[in-house]
Amino acid sequence: MMWLNSRAARLAVGFMLCAAPAMAQTQATINKLNEAWCAAFNKGDAAALAAMYADDATVLPQGGPMIKGATAIKDLWAGEVKELGDAKLTTVELHTMGEVMAYEIGIATAKTKANPPQDAVGKYVVVWKRSGTSWKIAVDIFNFDK
Amino acid sequence: MMWLNSRAARLAVGFMLCAAPAMAQTQATINKLNEAWCAAFNKGDAAALAAMYADDATVLPQGGPMIKGATAIKDLWAGEVKELGDAKLTTVELHTMGEVMAYEIGIATAKTKANPPQDAVGKYVVVWKRSGTSWKIAVDIFNFDK
Repeated sequence: MMWLNSRAARLAVGFMLCAAPAMAQTQATINKLNEAWCAAFNKGDAAALAAMYADDATVLPQGGPMIKGATAIKDLWAGEVKELGDAKLTTVELHTMGEVMAYEIGIATAKTKANPPQDAVGKYVVVWKRSGTSWKIAVDIFNFDK
Repeated sequence: MMWLNSRAARLAVGFMLCAAPAMAQTQATINKLNEAWCAAFNKGDAAALAAMYADDATVLPQGGPMIKGATAIKDLWAGEVKELGDAKLTTVELHTMGEVMAYEIGIATAKTKANPPQDAVGKYVVVWKRSGTSWKIAVDIFNFDK
């Protein structure tokens, strides 16, 4: 029992030592993916946005029903990029689960394409799934503060 | 290596055999929690709603900023129950992660307290975390289809 506890303690310490760098690496990866997402959005490239989602991804947009699949996701973003630009995503919390899944809580800001542009402030929850060496979006839900 | 593969295969089969009943049990538990959530909502019991969230839970409502903590969550629902009733939650997808966490995609319907009442149709993503023998809501984000 002593051995078990001691071994459990070593494993726990090992896990903690490993977990922080793995978490930091996942956050760095997701930061880059969020930058790529914004770059695609701000260029109006709906196909590049859709390619960042898993094949069975679900997107739950404010103002419309939930959608699944690359074509519907591409169509959704093709519509949104006509209305909004200058998008920025900021992670507020990232929780990883076993290095194959993570969920992110974040703030989204953008500007409308009205004249003059209006600030749009929203927030989102994204579930990420590891796909090979990178990550894909499995679930994306967002809403606006106003 | 053969032993390792064979053992890995047995573990994998064991996991698959165990996973389906565990998943069904988690879905049954979450169905009951969703029923309790709706019962509390439809009675206007914001304290009971707040008690279903983890201490560090985040709620991201449409039309307002994200909030954290029991008091803010109670205040949010105290406001919402004045506007809406007859709430129903229906799970569309439930994904469990290691029996300590799950995320749910669902449809929410309700009726406004206007006269005559209007249908409100929305959707949500909830991250659940196991807390002892039950589960608490760690993240709750929702929006409306119209």
